[in-house]
Amino acid sequence: MTTSLKVGVAGLGTVGAALIAQVALQQEALAARCGRAIEIAAVCARSKGKDRGLDLRKAKWFSDPVTLARAPGIDVFVELIGGAGDPAKSAIEAALASGKSVVTANKALLAKHGVKLATLAEKHRVALNFEAAVGAAIPIVKTLREGMAGNSFERIYGILNGTCNYILTRMEQDKLPFAECLKEAQRLGYAEADPSFDIEGHDTAQKLAILASLAFGTKVDQSAIYVEGISSITPADLAAADELGYRVKLLGVAVKTPKGIEQRVHPTMVRKDSAIAQVMGVTNAVTVDAAGIAPLTLVGPGAGGAATASAVLSDIGDIARGVRTAPFGRPAARLTAVRKAPMQRHEGGYYIRLLARDKPGTAATIATRLAEQEISLESIVQRHDQKSLSGGAKGSAVPVILITYATSEDGVRKALAAVGRDRVISGTPQVIRIEKN
Amino acid sequence: MTTSLKVGVAGLGTVGAALIAQVALQQEALAARCGRAIEIAAVCARSKGKDRGLDLRKAKWFSDPVTLARAPGIDVFVELIGGAGDPAKSAIEAALASGKSVVTANKALLAKHGVKLATLAEKHRVALNFEAAVGAAIPIVKTLREGMAGNSFERIYGILNGTCNYILTRMEQDKLPFAECLKEAQRLGYAEADPSFDIEGHDTAQKLAILASLAFGTKVDQSAIYVEGISSITPADLAAADELGYRVKLLGVAVKTPKGIEQRVHPTMVRKDSAIAQVMGVTNAVTVDAAGIAPLTLVGPGAGGAATASAVLSDIGDIARGVRTAPFGRPAARLTAVRKAPMQRHEGGYYIRLLARDKPGTAATIATRLAEQEISLESIVQRHDQKSLSGGAKGSAVPVILITYATSEDGVRKALAAVGRDRVISGTPQVIRIEKN
Repeated sequence: MTTSLKVGVAGLGTVGAALIAQVALQQEALAARCGRAIEIAAVCARSKGKDRGLDLRKAKWFSDPVTLARAPGIDVFVELIGGAGDPAKSAIEAALASGKSVVTANKALLAKHGVKLATLAEKHRVALNFEAAVGAAIPIVKTLREGMAGNSFERIYGILNGTCNYILTRMEQDKLPFAECLKEAQRLGYAEADPSFDIEGHDTAQKLAILASLAFGTKVDQSAIYVEGISSITPADLAAADELGYRVKLLGVAVKTPKGIEQRVHPTMVRKDSAIAQVMGVTNAVTVDAAGIAPLTLVGPGAGGAATASAVLSDIGDIARGVRTAPFGRPAARLTAVRKAPMQRHEGGYYIRLLARDKPGTAATIATRLAEQEISLESIVQRHDQKSLSGGAKGSAVPVILITYATSEDGVRKALAAVGRDRVISGTPQVIRIEKN
Repeated sequence: MTTSLKVGVAGLGTVGAALIAQVALQQEALAARCGRAIEIAAVCARSKGKDRGLDLRKAKWFSDPVTLARAPGIDVFVELIGGAGDPAKSAIEAALASGKSVVTANKALLAKHGVKLATLAEKHRVALNFEAAVGAAIPIVKTLREGMAGNSFERIYGILNGTCNYILTRMEQDKLPFAECLKEAQRLGYAEADPSFDIEGHDTAQKLAILASLAFGTKVDQSAIYVEGISSITPADLAAADELGYRVKLLGVAVKTPKGIEQRVHPTMVRKDSAIAQVMGVTNAVTVDAAGIAPLTLVGPGAGGAATASAVLSDIGDIARGVRTAPFGRPAARLTAVRKAPMQRHEGGYYIRLLARDKPGTAATIATRLAEQEISLESIVQRHDQKSLSGGAKGSAVPVILITYATSEDGVRKALAAVGRDRVISGTPQVIRIEKN
């Protein structure tokens, strides 16, 4: 008779509570699938008295996560505290150092200290699993680490933040401005009171840093990522995108280029008929381009207590079955430093929305500035009559939408700076990168 | 220094050749990811002289797969011969019995003898991996077995046959009849000279039997599956579906009902805005509905040498890392017999296309027969003018499209039999089940 796997859970928020409920509900199936029972042996949270609707009578109570992490008789330490610093970090370190496997959903901590923690886990020959850190119930970590272990990755990109995708979906479907959709997301609990972490792209960047490491064997490095949020996107952009056969999504993209690994988070135009463009609302999705095979796309719930607990439980299950994989797919010592491809050297198509002054010579000036940078245009849309594309402009400015063929970021920036100096446009041009898919 | 994992490959068709090429190409990355080198130590095929463009000098040649399966010095036997019987079966049995792990892409064999082979693998404490048997590069086996180990599954459904999806896509997009699209698929190599195995749904059924076992802990049992192919689908059905907000896909569906596990393969109407409806051409997709969380959908290449080799290599990688999971997710002895839900008791919405005789009383007769079976209609479309919906009928018959609310299969069959006896319709009614999603 195999003994049960003793789990200590630090953090009893939505995810912790969902995890404990699910373990109770799935007891029998888990034992059958993992070959041994899974037992919540200890828990830790700030307030012991709070009613969480959970039966915690069999679990030992700890008020300090580090003490729980070191407690004898615990096989696995589950960290659901969150945050890139202590106590999450010191608790995980304590658990690993005392020979316990760790399961965490903490993307911020992994994006910052992932390599260090992986090294520690390997040293003590224990597991450090984090399926829940990216895309919650979507098994993208397992897919990159194990399911595609023999593939050579070319690009990985995804909708990794449900808040942003919800806002963009609402803006597109109901033609509402950004601020209004953000407020609604906050009311529905999809966005925080301080939404900047989500809408400025930092949440996506942390997740992308983890995926890039798994795919390309590089050291997790959030600082290598170019980040741009969605707050400048207007209904006019979404309407123009729709007309041109695109949708706008906040994507995290990591791609192998001759100049190194390009990692970027920004609003992106994706073809309307692509798998990723179909992903609406709070749903997340990741597409993996591997050499020689058609893209693989995983779509599912990227947040929420039950969805996150599903991934945490899968990680616990692997540990119960005795599986231990290098946290980032290869030994930490073999992860290479990111050869960062600078954003100025990014190449791709661009959507540019300008408000051109309605006077003779404007079009010629814009065309000349683009030509100077060797930028070719795939399409130009200029409509005096179409108010919906004007982005609120009034008077003598005319909205002009340009779609370029593949060109360099640097060229686009220089051309637009020159156009600005020429005083033929009003306001700041809107620039959205186009991702081929 | 860990020794390399010695792999013997039986079958050097498209998949075998792609596998050997990929192992050579990814040598270094595989060693880093798996902790040891992977070495193709032996191969077996019918014709030794054939030029496959592979460097096989380091691999020992076998002409008999069973001899290779038993050969000392081989750690893993990869079966890429195919077919539900010998030599594939006896070779796998020989490998397992001599303590070798097995990787196979053989859905036919697993659908028929899966439980027996799993029992043998468990007895000898070796792995029996088959990610490639369903959806090729889509990691659906790993997702059900490990990635969602703590979830309770409610339904799993998917587009599991690229040939059928290619034909349906062409029929829909170019308004071409079935026979023409089939011929084209054959010309492009997507369909076999004898296409019945694919288009009649048997290939999908074998894959579904495997997925159902993984999801519901039941014994693999292909005979429990209701199977209907796509050859009766007409462009008129696809046009009507489009108008009503649906698309027609050949789905394999396994669903938990109060009457047992319903397993069925048939043309299915799916809502146009669902993830599965977006899947076009030869692409495959699987959606998993687990209790308490939003659906998870995996989309990717479901066939082809490189895509299948990707899954085989992932299975080999798991073995190299020392991972051994019960083949169907739980010990074979704990798999339960399928409590088969009979198709007559299936409940759901139905699309019914009739050719009604254009004479007084026809509508009343049809309505009465449906009412007798307590079938309520969500919509009725009848158009004298619309030739595209007539399915080729001529003269005084008028096409009528009915969409029912959820009702029982039995009721629909009885109502249509009665309508037939009443002689108010021409030909056989077309019936397509609607899947909620």
